[in-house]
Amino acid sequence: MRFDEAYSGNVFIKSHPNYEESEAVIYGMPMDWTVSFRPGSRFGPGRIREVSIGLEEYSPYMDRELEEVKYFDAGDIPLPFGNAQRSLDMIEEYIDGLLADGKFPIGLGGEHLVSWPVIKAMYKKYPDLAIIHMDAHTDLRDNYEGEPLSHSTPIKKACDLIGPKNVYSFGIRSGMKEEFQWAKEVGMNLFKFDVHQPLKEVLPKLAGRPVYVTIDIDVLDPAHAPGTGTLEAGGITSKELLASLVEIANSDVKVVGADLVEVAPVYDHSEQTPIVASKIIREIILGLVQKNK
Amino acid sequence: MRFDEAYSGNVFIKSHPNYEESEAVIYGMPMDWTVSFRPGSRFGPGRIREVSIGLEEYSPYMDRELEEVKYFDAGDIPLPFGNAQRSLDMIEEYIDGLLADGKFPIGLGGEHLVSWPVIKAMYKKYPDLAIIHMDAHTDLRDNYEGEPLSHSTPIKKACDLIGPKNVYSFGIRSGMKEEFQWAKEVGMNLFKFDVHQPLKEVLPKLAGRPVYVTIDIDVLDPAHAPGTGTLEAGGITSKELLASLVEIANSDVKVVGADLVEVAPVYDHSEQTPIVASKIIREIILGLVQKNK
Amino acid sequence: MRFDEAYSGNVFIKSHPNYEESEAVIYGMPMDWTVSFRPGSRFGPGRIREVSIGLEEYSPYMDRELEEVKYFDAGDIPLPFGNAQRSLDMIEEYIDGLLADGKFPIGLGGEHLVSWPVIKAMYKKYPDLAIIHMDAHTDLRDNYEGEPLSHSTPIKKACDLIGPKNVYSFGIRSGMKEEFQWAKEVGMNLFKFDVHQPLKEVLPKLAGRPVYVTIDIDVLDPAHAPGTGTLEAGGITSKELLASLVEIANSDVKVVGADLVEVAPVYDHSEQTPIVASKIIREIILGLVQKNK
Amino acid sequence: MRFDEAYSGNVFIKSHPNYEESEAVIYGMPMDWTVSFRPGSRFGPGRIREVSIGLEEYSPYMDRELEEVKYFDAGDIPLPFGNAQRSLDMIEEYIDGLLADGKFPIGLGGEHLVSWPVIKAMYKKYPDLAIIHMDAHTDLRDNYEGEPLSHSTPIKKACDLIGPKNVYSFGIRSGMKEEFQWAKEVGMNLFKFDVHQPLKEVLPKLAGRPVYVTIDIDVLDPAHAPGTGTLEAGGITSKELLASLVEIANSDVKVVGADLVEVAPVYDHSEQTPIVASKIIREIILGLVQKNK
Amino acid sequence: MRFDEAYSGNVFIKSHPNYEESEAVIYGMPMDWTVSFRPGSRFGPGRIREVSIGLEEYSPYMDRELEEVKYFDAGDIPLPFGNAQRSLDMIEEYIDGLLADGKFPIGLGGEHLVSWPVIKAMYKKYPDLAIIHMDAHTDLRDNYEGEPLSHSTPIKKACDLIGPKNVYSFGIRSGMKEEFQWAKEVGMNLFKFDVHQPLKEVLPKLAGRPVYVTIDIDVLDPAHAPGTGTLEAGGITSKELLASLVEIANSDVKVVGADLVEVAPVYDHSEQTPIVASKIIREIILGLVQKNK
Amino acid sequence: MRFDEAYSGNVFIKSHPNYEESEAVIYGMPMDWTVSFRPGSRFGPGRIREVSIGLEEYSPYMDRELEEVKYFDAGDIPLPFGNAQRSLDMIEEYIDGLLADGKFPIGLGGEHLVSWPVIKAMYKKYPDLAIIHMDAHTDLRDNYEGEPLSHSTPIKKACDLIGPKNVYSFGIRSGMKEEFQWAKEVGMNLFKFDVHQPLKEVLPKLAGRPVYVTIDIDVLDPAHAPGTGTLEAGGITSKELLASLVEIANSDVKVVGADLVEVAPVYDHSEQTPIVASKIIREIILGLVQKNK
Repeated sequence: MRFDEAYSGNVFIKSHPNYEESEAVIYGMPMDWTVSFRPGSRFGPGRIREVSIGLEEYSPYMDRELEEVKYFDAGDIPLPFGNAQRSLDMIEEYIDGLLADGKFPIGLGGEHLVSWPVIKAMYKKYPDLAIIHMDAHTDLRDNYEGEPLSHSTPIKKACDLIGPKNVYSFGIRSGMKEEFQWAKEVGMNLFKFDVHQPLKEVLPKLAGRPVYVTIDIDVLDPAHAPGTGTLEAGGITSKELLASLVEIANSDVKVVGADLVEVAPVYDHSEQTPIVASKIIREIILGLVQKNK
Repeated sequence: MRFDEAYSGNVFIKSHPNYEESEAVIYGMPMDWTVSFRPGSRFGPGRIREVSIGLEEYSPYMDRELEEVKYFDAGDIPLPFGNAQRSLDMIEEYIDGLLADGKFPIGLGGEHLVSWPVIKAMYKKYPDLAIIHMDAHTDLRDNYEGEPLSHSTPIKKACDLIGPKNVYSFGIRSGMKEEFQWAKEVGMNLFKFDVHQPLKEVLPKLAGRPVYVTIDIDVLDPAHAPGTGTLEAGGITSKELLASLVEIANSDVKVVGADLVEVAPVYDHSEQTPIVASKIIREIILGLVQKNK
Repeated sequence: MRFDEAYSGNVFIKSHPNYEESEAVIYGMPMDWTVSFRPGSRFGPGRIREVSIGLEEYSPYMDRELEEVKYFDAGDIPLPFGNAQRSLDMIEEYIDGLLADGKFPIGLGGEHLVSWPVIKAMYKKYPDLAIIHMDAHTDLRDNYEGEPLSHSTPIKKACDLIGPKNVYSFGIRSGMKEEFQWAKEVGMNLFKFDVHQPLKEVLPKLAGRPVYVTIDIDVLDPAHAPGTGTLEAGGITSKELLASLVEIANSDVKVVGADLVEVAPVYDHSEQTPIVASKIIREIILGLVQKNK
Repeated sequence: MRFDEAYSGNVFIKSHPNYEESEAVIYGMPMDWTVSFRPGSRFGPGRIREVSIGLEEYSPYMDRELEEVKYFDAGDIPLPFGNAQRSLDMIEEYIDGLLADGKFPIGLGGEHLVSWPVIKAMYKKYPDLAIIHMDAHTDLRDNYEGEPLSHSTPIKKACDLIGPKNVYSFGIRSGMKEEFQWAKEVGMNLFKFDVHQPLKEVLPKLAGRPVYVTIDIDVLDPAHAPGTGTLEAGGITSKELLASLVEIANSDVKVVGADLVEVAPVYDHSEQTPIVASKIIREIILGLVQKNK
Repeated sequence: MRFDEAYSGNVFIKSHPNYEESEAVIYGMPMDWTVSFRPGSRFGPGRIREVSIGLEEYSPYMDRELEEVKYFDAGDIPLPFGNAQRSLDMIEEYIDGLLADGKFPIGLGGEHLVSWPVIKAMYKKYPDLAIIHMDAHTDLRDNYEGEPLSHSTPIKKACDLIGPKNVYSFGIRSGMKEEFQWAKEVGMNLFKFDVHQPLKEVLPKLAGRPVYVTIDIDVLDPAHAPGTGTLEAGGITSKELLASLVEIANSDVKVVGADLVEVAPVYDHSEQTPIVASKIIREIILGLVQKNK
Repeated sequence: MRFDEAYSGNVFIKSHPNYEESEAVIYGMPMDWTVSFRPGSRFGPGRIREVSIGLEEYSPYMDRELEEVKYFDAGDIPLPFGNAQRSLDMIEEYIDGLLADGKFPIGLGGEHLVSWPVIKAMYKKYPDLAIIHMDAHTDLRDNYEGEPLSHSTPIKKACDLIGPKNVYSFGIRSGMKEEFQWAKEVGMNLFKFDVHQPLKEVLPKLAGRPVYVTIDIDVLDPAHAPGTGTLEAGGITSKELLASLVEIANSDVKVVGADLVEVAPVYDHSEQTPIVASKIIREIILGLVQKNK
């Protein structure tokens, strides 16, 4: 893998042509082979980049412009079709490289399992790491029908690694009874249904700590993000999600990386899902990357 | 019609294989022949069952699991294409049978007219019956262009049968002027635009009474349920609808049956409509069936 | 162009057959040749008329029926494909004619640039004109990549003509930094993100003044209006938009014309966008036209 | 019903404004209440008219222009939703009127059952009537699950009325074994799979006779007409269907009426089905109406 | 795995309720984890069964009815998400069981790699096995980007196992240069572009031999089967494919099993792909199973 | 405009990174502002590149691989939205540059009008130029509703420039009567309905001459290319089009440039249209570019 060459495919709007000079790096993880319901998130990263051309460069939420941040679009990691373990190993090694170079990683999924190797790499660099997780689903399973590498397990793996008390989940509205019980018993911070209000309460507690932000697009209601594998009614609006990102941007946490996963374009004829996803990435660039300094 | 055999088609997730041992029975009413605008709800029951495979068995709303309730999926009533009167007769006879066996009926529509024979059967068993009706439309017409058997008439027929004061409509945002006036004059309980807030006020008044709950999926805004025949902007969110069901579950009314109608899958490429519908059915099973005891 | 003949194509539901006797006139402006992203709004006017057949004639929001207002549907202005300047000239001349006849114009777009010649005509008749503008986008550019005739410029042109202090924009959540700064510097009234609350505060200040209302359908969140060219997450609900129209109807401003633009049906498989658009037109007829007297 | 007024809805391109002066009349029969599989053909007539705007007025197949034929578009017959018998009665009475006025009827379906009352009216005027039927399906059932009024019965009813030897079916590739056997036994002329070749052989035998042409759009392969209720692979191309119409136009049969049925737009995102249907109607106007003289 | 119980999900139309009494068994292989382009064929088997309800029970191609053949629908093999090797092992064991019971297997894919373990099982029972393969693609790779378990390798594996001279591929129009060269060098029978004509020439040579038929739906042109992962223009019509099956049915080969793979419903809004697939399965039942005797 | 830099967006599969070393250049002309019916071809070039990733590099039609030809993908010409004249000027200047550098131009449309400035540039270099034109439409109008810059005029302009006898149109099945008559009178070579057969007869006459090939994707039947603006039933198959390109490749004409226009992805949910388009571009590279030598 080479980080030092311009990517010859589609790139996120206004991305910087030079890797060395960039503080953040956008990369895709086009993997969907462990999803149990509707596949297709492998096409998420490409489509998010494609529709980013429709974005304004200025955000009235963050009051900042894309030209104020240098970010390089490194393209997709060439993950091997159908081989989950090798894919995860490649991702971890890739992030190790980015972090060694001092970059702020911005990942585009792909299924949620791709966040697991990123978190492993993050934790090696930041032993005090906390995780902000926005999702409709707990993702706290040990395995899915016997398979430990599954898109319903990454947050459990993260809890086991960095300690459940360092993991904060928001917007959760689906999972097994055992998952909710386990979260309660071990002191993991799981907030049901809402994101903005509990986040406001949590952020001051995380002041000064390195935080990784992982967003499953299905934290949004299906009305706002129909293009994903597992639709779960009762979700938040895109307005609430945008306000939540502003809340993080204005807090004293030190965001050290972020990802956005589970965009599956084929289920969304109007393309509103990749379009809202590209806007979230813009807000991450404008509001969260600055926290890396 | 036989209730005593396992249905050989698609079944709702985790449905019980034995009719006798079940307290509730799911059945489909695949009829759409009197709709005046966009047909297709005949495919609602089948698609709701198909996508139910994506549901978690546990509800964090009701804090209960599907295995705690025994419900049998009896498949669809084989209604004759294009013959409304015979279809309604078959439905009424079918519900008579279910009630005679002490079952809690959970109906899947189909157009809203199918609720009318169910209510007739219900009223025979429960003379003190009240109706909770969630819908975008009044459905209070006497006829539609001269046709008394129409999907815009079932609530009027229900009012005439059980008395308008025993009917509570929520979320209404469309109808003829005469319908709204009639509702007011006869003392029917019609709440415009909202569901949760007025429901909270009404439920204590219905404490102890047998209540039938009929939900037209178009009570949801088209953003949350585009797959239905008559889209009506200005509706409630799926979050509000789920909260309303929790409200009923926690109240002292005695729910004796429920239905969910007007899901027309063909208008919804992402399948968010049958998916939210299958979640509502899960909440009915977990939150309303227990009230039958 | 003849206003005096019944239009032989599709007409908006319950439109009056006679031009002379009508107080309002619905007309289409099927132009989309300057849009920079996704074209297709040329088919908006036709589809809005087609789905209007599904509307109830009574509005529970305005408590009024369509038969209480006489409005004529004049069909589409036959704009020349690909020729922006000639199209705008034709529209201005058309509106001059309508205003000379004392009609209340209700325009169906088409891209937002079509509002510009309408505003010019309006201002000639009402020198004290104010504009209420609901949109996701500022539309305050001087030009788009050098082209002064662009769908991102109409509000800037309007400010230049009638004075920026007479222009009130609501729901804005996208634009260039320079546009937001310019608005602030010149005292234009630009309200970000929300519509209903700031509108409530603004309306008393406009009491008695002639007001033109221009609505870009993308002021709605993509969840509520996926069928438009430039989707912008974080928008308002259709419920908020309907409430805003009621607010205007109940105020003391004197609405003298209105338009609804940027409906592009091809991106919306469920047709929820033209359907909500037809409902908005109904509310304009019932709530805003009366203000013309 | 009035034939003497201009229709105020959408009209087929270049239709003549005056009923009296027209030799042919286009009318819609928006009925789909007896279909056993996928409904939606009620929207066929409207959509065929809408897309007819994209047609060239000249046909290189017939070497003739639309302005050479006077045809009036009378709009849709206002059929009562869900009432099959009354709908059929209205259609028969309508056609009686058209024939009394000496018009050539061109019907737009709707389900295929609508052709039955048209054929009844035709036979009253032309006792020597023969029928050319292009379809994927035999439509020779006596009833469908006990229901004699079904979209799978019209050709059987026609055979019973005018004699099976006067009915010629082409392109048939689906039906019950009994239907194929019955056709053989009674001497009905049923040609499997192909249309053009057997038609060429049949036409000389029908020289001079009055012929009614009824076309189910599903005679085309689903590749050419995905927007219909019952897709049946193995069909003919649109090229073969167009050549078949030329064959009829150049023959010595005396066509006295025609219809095209079963266009259900919602299943066809690209609109290729209503578009090919509008072209077939143009060819009927240019190639078959002339035979009426 | 139990073969001895009725499947409780969706079943193929008219399937027999009893495994023991059936001569053929339909089973699904819902696996798509090694596809390199568009996933989604995991939903193929379920949707093929669902739309089979629209099929007539009689085939005018084979002149035979479904009730003349006893076939059991065993549902889907519960393959583990994302684990290719274990999936293939399960399929092979499953087919071993079917063959031990003397059943004729009819497989529904899923990606084409699922045919590989079936062929392995077949070859154990029939050492003289020949393969008739209809496909757009050669599928003769040794591996795909290093991965030997890939949907582009099954025919190569089959050649290696049973000898390339015993493999007959038809309709091929896509592959690497090396694949075509290899086929030529080793004497494999690869026919480009067409199916029916070369098949007619080949069948007499295979008279009396046991033959396994594997059909990739993409042998059809995208016009006839848009719902598949890898669309390849220049394909055959559904008419040619149906005629090819008749050709096999009327030949003297002894078909001992068959499959149909790569139906991915989400890419086909009109559902023409699962519908033509269900018709092909009907023809396999009526025309190929009889050959098993 | 710079030809000498690698394009940073999506590129056609296996395109060469170096402009100077390439013999052919792919470039996009994303313009659709003069189309009279359904716009959207501005997104054709981007989508054709995107789906080209699914192509095999070897063509069994041409028996040649992409690595045997050096072609550079120069991205899209940045045409100004809505300004037809300036767009055409930019294209002509662009092609002048390519031809001056000795490149073989391969254009991706965009509406068909973009071919006009290309032909102008071609004719300046090749005074003996002939044109092979494959299309459903004559495109022989002088203007469209008064507008001389229209997508229905490019072939007329070409005839006027290079002489009608040097223009060969194939597959034509739509146009005004006057256009067909004019073609006949002036000796233009217009072949109706078919492509392959007349092309075989024409090619020997063009031996040795420089030929520009312009293909409107709607020469294909809508079954094979639903994603275009103006669908015209009765077209050829993709198989016939591919065979026609082989015919040209094997002839003695000297192809000096080619384009493929009118791909409008939004109307094609399955993406079969951009996919067949990318295959045609591959065949042009492999079969036509070699003729440039």
